[in-house]
Amino acid sequence: MPTSIKKDFPTYNVRRFLEPGPIVLVSSAHKRQTNIMTMGWHMMMEFSPALVGCLISGANHSFELIRKSRQCVINLPTTDLAATVVRIGNCSGCDIDKFSEFGLTPEVGTHVRAPLIGECYANFECRLADSGWVKKYNVFVFEVVKAHVATSPKLPKTIHYRGDGEFMLSGEETRRWRKLFRPGML
Amino acid sequence: MPTSIKKDFPTYNVRRFLEPGPIVLVSSAHKRQTNIMTMGWHMMMEFSPALVGCLISGANHSFELIRKSRQCVINLPTTDLAATVVRIGNCSGCDIDKFSEFGLTPEVGTHVRAPLIGECYANFECRLADSGWVKKYNVFVFEVVKAHVATSPKLPKTIHYRGDGEFMLSGEETRRWRKLFRPGML
Repeated sequence: MPTSIKKDFPTYNVRRFLEPGPIVLVSSAHKRQTNIMTMGWHMMMEFSPALVGCLISGANHSFELIRKSRQCVINLPTTDLAATVVRIGNCSGCDIDKFSEFGLTPEVGTHVRAPLIGECYANFECRLADSGWVKKYNVFVFEVVKAHVATSPKLPKTIHYRGDGEFMLSGEETRRWRKLFRPGML
Repeated sequence: MPTSIKKDFPTYNVRRFLEPGPIVLVSSAHKRQTNIMTMGWHMMMEFSPALVGCLISGANHSFELIRKSRQCVINLPTTDLAATVVRIGNCSGCDIDKFSEFGLTPEVGTHVRAPLIGECYANFECRLADSGWVKKYNVFVFEVVKAHVATSPKLPKTIHYRGDGEFMLSGEETRRWRKLFRPGML
């Protein structure tokens, strides 16, 4: 799987990729450890600053890396990475280095120490903005401080999870209802 | 648009329909008023009790109806309702009765007073479970206390928003990677 050529992307518009509900890979680093986890439960919370709420169970090895480093990268995988996404979710970073195990390329970010995953369509560098619901719900609120998005294809073919091993893959992209929107409602 | 024949569905599994990230219609009632709003920012937070975090801006007429009644219904529209979903998002319930304006059928729930939308594929009756982040982020945490899901088709063709009037429609459904999952990770 090749790494993508990427461009800077405005953080206030990361909803473009996260609002449709794709499964994502979250990469993290603390001291000498790095890790990757598969995450399906997340939501946009604000355009600017670009806030994203993420549920990261305390059972994940990534939980402590992220809690302590207060950083992560949300990486957007496409369907060609689906088998890898499942395999990453199957195993724990306690036991293995997931970058080397799965042949993924760690890339250096500009704002965080957590590595970007080169093979993903987009990488959103995040800083922990609010840990107030970490204990209660395992919910971390991150601010996307830097966004990198592939220049091609124009839109990613994303992976959406239904539970029980079933996926929905993103389908048709359309602007056919765009003319119905009042401009302020776009 | 016909209303659907629906069956009871286990609330612990509503992630099946909400995790893929569809745009939803939220219906509410307080005193003599009802309303419907279009909502794109939500996330699963727990299986059982089935918790869903939802961002409802204070600019919406629904905000006060939901805050005061502490209830709502999350309704799952399919692509045949896309134009209606846009039109509902365009206008305010201050001015109109959205059920009659858009020819939608209010149905009676079993656990909440907010009306279900008959034409939607699924209806999730919700009670407000946590209002701790309403002031800070406009985030309501609801518990789904009753779920109604159409008996046919087996899976809904859902609408996913990218901003700027662009939608992604749900595509292929697949279990092709199911055999890769460790059973505990499904």
